[in-house]
Parts: sequence; C-alpha cells; structure tokens
Amino acid sequence: MILGIAQINVKVGDIKGNTKKIVDYIKKAKDSYVDVLLFPEQTIPGYPVQDLMFISGFVEQNLQALDFIRQQSRGITVIVGFIDKHEIHEGKCYNAAAIITDTRIVRIIHKQLLPTYDVFNEARYFTSGNPSEPVDIMDIKTGVIICEDLWDKDYDTKVVSAIVNKGARLILSINASPYYKEKIAIRERVALDKIAETCVPIVYVNMIGGQDEITFDGSSFVMNGDGTLVFRAPAFREGLFKIILPTTCQIPAGAIAPALQPEEELFKALVLNLKDYFEKMGAFKKVVIGLSGGVDSSFTTVVAARAIGPENVICLYLPTRFNSDKSYECAKKICENLGVEFFVFPIEQIFAQFEKDFAAAIPKNAFTVADENVQARIRGIILMYYSNKFNHLLVSTGNKSEIAVGFCTLYGDTCGGKNVPGDLFKTEIYKICKNYINKDEEIIPKFVLERPPSPELRENQKTEDSLPPYSVLDKILEPMIEMQKSIDDVVAMGFDMQLVKRIQNLVKIAEFKRGQLVQTIKVTPKTFGIGRRMPIVNGFDYSAKF
Amino acid sequence: MILGIAQINVKVGDIKGNTKKIVDYIKKAKDSYVDVLLFPEQTIPGYPVQDLMFISGFVEQNLQALDFIRQQSRGITVIVGFIDKHEIHEGKCYNAAAIITDTRIVRIIHKQLLPTYDVFNEARYFTSGNPSEPVDIMDIKTGVIICEDLWDKDYDTKVVSAIVNKGARLILSINASPYYKEKIAIRERVALDKIAETCVPIVYVNMIGGQDEITFDGSSFVMNGDGTLVFRAPAFREGLFKIILPTTCQIPAGAIAPALQPEEELFKALVLNLKDYFEKMGAFKKVVIGLSGGVDSSFTTVVAARAIGPENVICLYLPTRFNSDKSYECAKKICENLGVEFFVFPIEQIFAQFEKDFAAAIPKNAFTVADENVQARIRGIILMYYSNKFNHLLVSTGNKSEIAVGFCTLYGDTCGGKNVPGDLFKTEIYKICKNYINKDEEIIPKFVLERPPSPELRENQKTEDSLPPYSVLDKILEPMIEMQKSIDDVVAMGFDMQLVKRIQNLVKIAEFKRGQLVQTIKVTPKTFGIGRRMPIVNGFDYSAKF
Repeated sequence: MILGIAQINVKVGDIKGNTKKIVDYIKKAKDSYVDVLLFPEQTIPGYPVQDLMFISGFVEQNLQALDFIRQQSRGITVIVGFIDKHEIHEGKCYNAAAIITDTRIVRIIHKQLLPTYDVFNEARYFTSGNPSEPVDIMDIKTGVIICEDLWDKDYDTKVVSAIVNKGARLILSINASPYYKEKIAIRERVALDKIAETCVPIVYVNMIGGQDEITFDGSSFVMNGDGTLVFRAPAFREGLFKIILPTTCQIPAGAIAPALQPEEELFKALVLNLKDYFEKMGAFKKVVIGLSGGVDSSFTTVVAARAIGPENVICLYLPTRFNSDKSYECAKKICENLGVEFFVFPIEQIFAQFEKDFAAAIPKNAFTVADENVQARIRGIILMYYSNKFNHLLVSTGNKSEIAVGFCTLYGDTCGGKNVPGDLFKTEIYKICKNYINKDEEIIPKFVLERPPSPELRENQKTEDSLPPYSVLDKILEPMIEMQKSIDDVVAMGFDMQLVKRIQNLVKIAEFKRGQLVQTIKVTPKTFGIGRRMPIVNGFDYSAKF
Repeated sequence: MILGIAQINVKVGDIKGNTKKIVDYIKKAKDSYVDVLLFPEQTIPGYPVQDLMFISGFVEQNLQALDFIRQQSRGITVIVGFIDKHEIHEGKCYNAAAIITDTRIVRIIHKQLLPTYDVFNEARYFTSGNPSEPVDIMDIKTGVIICEDLWDKDYDTKVVSAIVNKGARLILSINASPYYKEKIAIRERVALDKIAETCVPIVYVNMIGGQDEITFDGSSFVMNGDGTLVFRAPAFREGLFKIILPTTCQIPAGAIAPALQPEEELFKALVLNLKDYFEKMGAFKKVVIGLSGGVDSSFTTVVAARAIGPENVICLYLPTRFNSDKSYECAKKICENLGVEFFVFPIEQIFAQFEKDFAAAIPKNAFTVADENVQARIRGIILMYYSNKFNHLLVSTGNKSEIAVGFCTLYGDTCGGKNVPGDLFKTEIYKICKNYINKDEEIIPKFVLERPPSPELRENQKTEDSLPPYSVLDKILEPMIEMQKSIDDVVAMGFDMQLVKRIQNLVKIAEFKRGQLVQTIKVTPKTFGIGRRMPIVNGFDYSAKF
C-alpha cells in the first residue's frame, strides 16, 4: 500500500481554513495513488487551542468539520486529529484521531497519555482515553496512537507494548510535537526504544508551523521493525510525502532528509515561527525593529529579513549622545547588506526634555539606572508609534541571558508583538552569527561580533561592568534556568558562591518583568513563557537548607 | 475537645517564615488549651508554589520543615499541609496533610482530586492520592480531606461519602480556596450538599492572604451534621479561632461572622491583595499612581490608601492640553480627602517634542490613535521613573471592560507592578464607589461619578463615542468573557448581532495586549490572567457555524 504523510501547517482555531487544507491534501493524495493518508494530531482545530476549547460552539464546529472531511474521503483511508466529545459527560473531551475509510468512520482513537508539563497542559482540557484495539487498515493490524502515547516511559500505562500485545504489526503515530534543539534526535531515539521493545515499525507524522511561542518542525519519519530509519521528511517544510508499505511491513529505504547543523536548525526555527506569526495574525504590513548596531538586534534583523523578505523590514536607529559613530555605521551596513530600509530617528531632544522636566520636579536629581531606562522607553514609544501608525509588527530583540537577569528595560527594549532571540543565551547568538549567518559572506560586520557588548545608555558603558562575562554568566544560567538547579548545585559545578547567589537573586527579582514580556520563540527545553510558571511573590531562599 | 482553626496568611516559597508562623500558632494554641489545631492546605510551602516546586531542594526543604514542626508539637495534635514525595517515583509528589500527635506523625493524607481548571493547575504538580481511611483523633473517627476532595460532584471518585462509609463521624477539611464574589456562599453550599449526603459535620479551614493575582479570604466555617452553620470566621482576617467539639460531634452554636455587603467584600479583597503584594515583595517604599480624575484611578487611589496607608501613597497628575480643569480639581480633591500626596507633572512639553520629531520624520502626519497612545506612554515613562528612582510600586488602574476590548495603551496606562481594578467591569466600579466608598462621606467627588468617561487624549473625547455605553458593553462582556459564550449565544440574550460581532472582534484582537499585562486581582470566576489561557494567533470565527 501507499502511505501518505501530510506534514502540514495548520492555524489554531481556524477550523474552516484547516479543513480546506485537509481536503486539498486528500485530493492531492488521491491523485498520487495514496491509499492511507496520515495527518498530524489535532489537525482540525490546530494545536494547542488552549481555552478556545471552552468557547461555546468550538468543539461542535470541529465535529462538523470532521463530518465534512469524512464525506470528502471517498476511495481513501484518512487518519485525522480532532477533539472528540465524551459520550455522556457534557464537559469532557478527548484528544482524538478518526480513522475514515471510504467516507465511513471505522474507528475513533482517544489519546491515553496527556502531557501536563512544560508548555503542555492537556489535563486541563482532555480526559484520558481507554486502551484501544488494533484496527485493520488494508489487512494490516495497526496500532494508531497519539503523540504522548509513544512517550510512555514515565507512565504506568504502556500504550505501545499494550497494542502490540493485542496483535498490532504497525504503529501509526500522529503528533503535534514542538521543536527545541536536539528534539529531532530525541524523538527518533524514543521511537527506537519502542521498536527495541516491540520490533514493530513506526510511522511518525508531525505538524509544521509556528503557533505563538512554539514551533512544530515536521521532521516526520519512518522506522522499520529492526530499528532502521527508512524515511525522514525535511524539517520546517510543509508537504505530502509518500511511503511504500508492503504487506510484510518491511518498508524499503527511502529519502532521508539530512540533519541540519545546529546553528542552521535554530535559525530556521526562528524564521518559520516569525513568518507564521506575521502571516497568521494577518494584521501587519511590515516588521519594524529598533536596530542599535549590537549583536541581538543585528541578529534579529537578519531573521526578520529572511522570514518576511527584506523589502518588508524597516529598521530604526534611535541614537542619543551615548551612541557611538561605530554603532551607527554597523547598523547602516547591516541594512545595506540585507537590503532593508534604514532610518535614523535621533531621540536626544526628547530625552533632553524629559531630563529637564525631571530636574524641575525632583531636586538634586542624579543620573541613575532610572535615567538609562528613560532612553530605552523613549525608543519603545517611537517604535510603537510606527507600529500603531502603519500597522507594522514591532519585533523585540532581547536575549535569554539578559531576560534572565533582568538586564532589559520593561516597556523599553522589551516592547513588541514578538521577540525573536529570547530563548537563546548571548553566547549562542554569537555562535549562530559566526557559524551560520556570516559563514559565506560578512552580513553582520565583524566589529559587531567582536566589540564588548554595551547598552550605550550612559558614557562608556559596558555590560560586563555590571555582569560577569557572558561566557561565565551563560554557564551559570543554563543549569539554573533549564535544569532548575539550586544555588548549591550550581556552586558544585565550580562557580563562586557569591556570584551564583547574586545571579540567582537577579533572576528572582526579574520575575515580575518576565510576567509582562511579549512571547518569544521556544528553541530550548525550558523557555521563559508559558512553559515556566513562577510565582512573582516568592519567599524561597534558593541557597539554604532549612 | 477544643478544636483550633488557624486561619493564617503564609507566603509562597517562604518555608522558613511560614514554619515560624506555624510554630508560633502551635504555641498560642497550646496556651489556649487547644487539643487539635488545623492549618490550611499547603501551609508550609504556601499555595500555589507553581514551578518553584521543580527547583532542586524545594520539596526537601519543605519536608525538613515538617520534621521541625513535628518536634514542636508536644502535647497537641496538629494537622498541617505540605508537599509529600512519592515513596518510589523520584519525580512524583502529593498535595498532603500530616496529622501529628504529640511529636509523632500518626497519618499522612494525600489529596485525591486535583483541580486543573481556571487558576488551578494541580495535575502539573501532583499525583492523585489513594482513598484514605478515617483516623482516630481523640477517639473520634475522623475523615481528613484536602480542598477539592470536598468538591467531588463532577468527579467519579466520591471522597466524602467514601470516608463516611468507612466510619468517619467528622470531616476536617483543609483548604487554600481563592476568593471571588459569591464564593463564600458557594463553599458553604458545597459543604451543605455533602452533609445532606452523609449527615456528618464539617470543619472547613481556609487560608487568608494575597498571592499574586489570587486572594484567600479565610471565612473558615463549621457545620453540624444537621446542616446548621455553627461557626464562621471573619473574611480577610488572620487569626486563631476555637471550637468546642463534644464527643457526640454535636457542635454548640458559636460566633458567626456576618456576610459582608457585596461592595464591601470586593473592596476588602482588593485591599488585602494589594497590601500583601506590597509587603510580601518587600521591595517598595511607597505606591505611586497616575491619577487622572477619572473613576478608575480615583477608585484605585482609595484602595491603595486603605491598603498601605495614605502617607505611603503618591499620586501624579500628568496633564496635556487635553485635560480639563475639572479633572485637575477632582484629582486634587481626592488626594486631599484621603490625605495622599498630590503632585502635578505636566507632560505637554515632552509631548510637543515628540510631535515635532514625528512631524520631521513622517511627512503629512495626521493625528491618530497612535498620537493618543504617545500621551499614555509618556505618562508610563514618568510613572516608571518614579518607580525606578524611588523604589515605589506603580499601581495601574485599568478596568475589566477596557482591558477586554483593548481600550488601554500597552506600555502606557497599563504600566506597573500590580493592577487593582482589572477584574471589575466599569459599572461595578461605579457601584462600589457609590454604595461603599462614598457611603458616609464624599471621598470621591460626585462629579467624577457623574461625568461621561473620557481618556482625555484628544479634544472633547468621550469613551462612549467609540464604545457602546458601559451599561450595554458590560452586559455583553459578562457572558462573553465569564461564561465563554459564542456570538450567537450573546445575540440570543437580546443584543444586536453587528454590535456583538464588533465587541467579540475587539476582545480577540486585544489578546496580544493581555498577554503582556501586569497581574490584576481575581474577584470573579473568570479573570484575565493565569486562569484564562487564550492563544494569540487565533483563527476562530466566533460567530459562524461550520
């Protein structure tokens, strides 16, 4: 038989648009002699729909869409993800897959394992399904499972071996599995472990596309019952992919998209997510960026130019007396290299007026960090002015290191509808600039990558005057944030106790800022945002034993 | 026996501070001849600790604290809430209660029902406990249950009747139950329903205090086995309350704190939450508020003055050419009435400089909503300047109606560390001002409550030029937001289809703003914030059938 993998990009809530795409793919698949067409998890409503699910009529519309898709499935078997309702309990729903053969729903499968960690919140929305039986698909006894059902290692219910024990000779796994670095290899490893237990081949279908802070990378794959990888779809690319499946279930070797270099993979994830945010919101004409000539905003500009085209990006350079000529030249050069519009909007006079009025209101007013913040906030006002006036999407440029320790100005450089590099530590941004963006030509001037970082908010300021070098800071933040280590754990890795305590305290007191930040793009296992839910009022002493 | 109800205020994460308070209450209870002392759910770590629980060492510290409390419990029985670890699975934890008698842990109870809706997220953190047996407490077979275990109506497991069937003659229920209007009556009704099933008395102990956007109101109570309310502790007040419990479990009638008027109750909830935010953060000297002379900022100033004392509140009046003299007079009068510092900081010159620079940068630049936003954002900069410079907490003043439809300027009037009236529709704020704040004397000038609302961001502007009257808007928003009704449902309530569609669209496109808002204070069943999780990229058509 011919299996079709529909690695598609759907939009949360857009039941009509998603259904249209599903029906188009069914037609395309039939034209290509596909016998069984697989769509990702939650194809019809998109993933994750979050509290949209509770809006009256939402689940019903998704069921009506399923019925429409059923009618369009003449002469083909289609497996499609949707939200199913509990037979009796009005309020309960399942994360479900419908198996439709020739306009007849032959089976509905309910997801058994509901991830409720990090960005996942399925226990809020779904009830666990009961164990399912294999279903005959063109005479092959097949286990159809949904996403987490494959990741059964830490659960008491072992979904895969249970269905194999009931006779399944093939596993079809439909997924909405978000990207982070190394995730592609992790997924293939999980599948391999299940094959080691069961010796049954796995067809793994994943979504692609950006949805708020998460990105689905696709990277669908097929492994034979002996664990050989026989197919891998490209990452970050929508498409219909065909697999030959003999009745023996010994799948012949096919195309295997090569793994990307880490820097390219991260860059492409950001590009796809930003592109999808821009397009799916459907509200914007262009992207506007405050470009300082530093590495973060330079990097963000490159991502934006790639995502929506350089002709749709406008950069504002917003200098005061503290900005060096060299910063101006670098910012200008990047825009020239990319073909992006560059506009200079000096903020010196506005800043001077603020300082004058503050001096009148506050006796003996010395220059402090509050005055630094004013400059960042004036920039925020001007960038938001362009955003409001011209329907441009303002993209913010803060990185994970600075967001972690609060070295960003709330309502200043954090303004915007989308942040691009907020899940990358500063040292990682340098790496992507050097090893990927500037690999073949110097798009970002070398000087930007070599100068000591500075916010240029006072005379001769250097970030590393207030913070340890990023090479040290990032090595402390990584275990602290991504592995949730205590102060003692981090100190045991070889860092100074006082320094670690200071960093931990900066992370803690910046929580109220992060509570108000714009969404970023998840590329690591632990991203600031919906997957990390910290109290703001927090009396925990991270260091001490009781 | 003498039962003690410790209706206490703990702080999330502050294991040491909470333990000290628990031990102080144990001492106080022993001095008052209490035999059995009940603390709320999650007394030791506070509630909800959210992802703090995953920080390495957190759960261990809470267990060490439990052991310390155990040692301090000589000659008394103490029931205290904590986080317990699964015996085998390293990563699994329980929401637990320890029953300690005379320094010995006689039983540990695990919460069975884990709320995972609205602001609750317990499935992310805890594993469901197995059904527990009654425990003998001074020769009374007692069922100890934790919060949601009492609310078993929508669950398959019926915790209360199960433990009564096993012989329990008394239910001790420990809770961390957040406030919203009418919640106090709802809780007592739930207890009454359980008594109707079981004829067993219930002692209900609740926390008090503010924690981020939620507030625990206390209002602990006791009901006899015939359903008579025999005790109710006051709302929003910390304290140790004593109950006589005869061996017959027929509890004699005691003090019943009267129910508050709705407006007073709402006002006190806001006051307690703001006070606790201010004090528990431990970072602030004063509160600063941008006072416009409109009803929202006037209301917020009254709440702040009550919460932290008028001497600790400073109001900034920040006029442009668009602000009327009457606004100035009203703002000044409110501050005088309250004894709050009033300071005028005109922003006209700063605004003029912005307009001049925009005119230079943008040819033929007409005055639009973008220019209105600039004014709100200049105010944000100045208020944040005072916040940053003097360690003042900036409190924002946006109401629920305006946050719903996006009639607020992101990074402008939304700036701050805490919002006060964001869970109250505009019409409700008027009601509290008239019926409670101004009940005995005119604290807020009558003119403020009678003038048509205006943001005063352009000449002769009135909010109701762009929006329907609040009396209509709020009646549409309430079913739309709090009951999650579709457009068709709201139209069926008697509103115009075009109007409802327009409001629904405003609500939808403001989602990106709400994603960046400061925390407010929950006083309704559905508050913008952690209990309402909407996608920002959202293609749902709220009106149409599929």
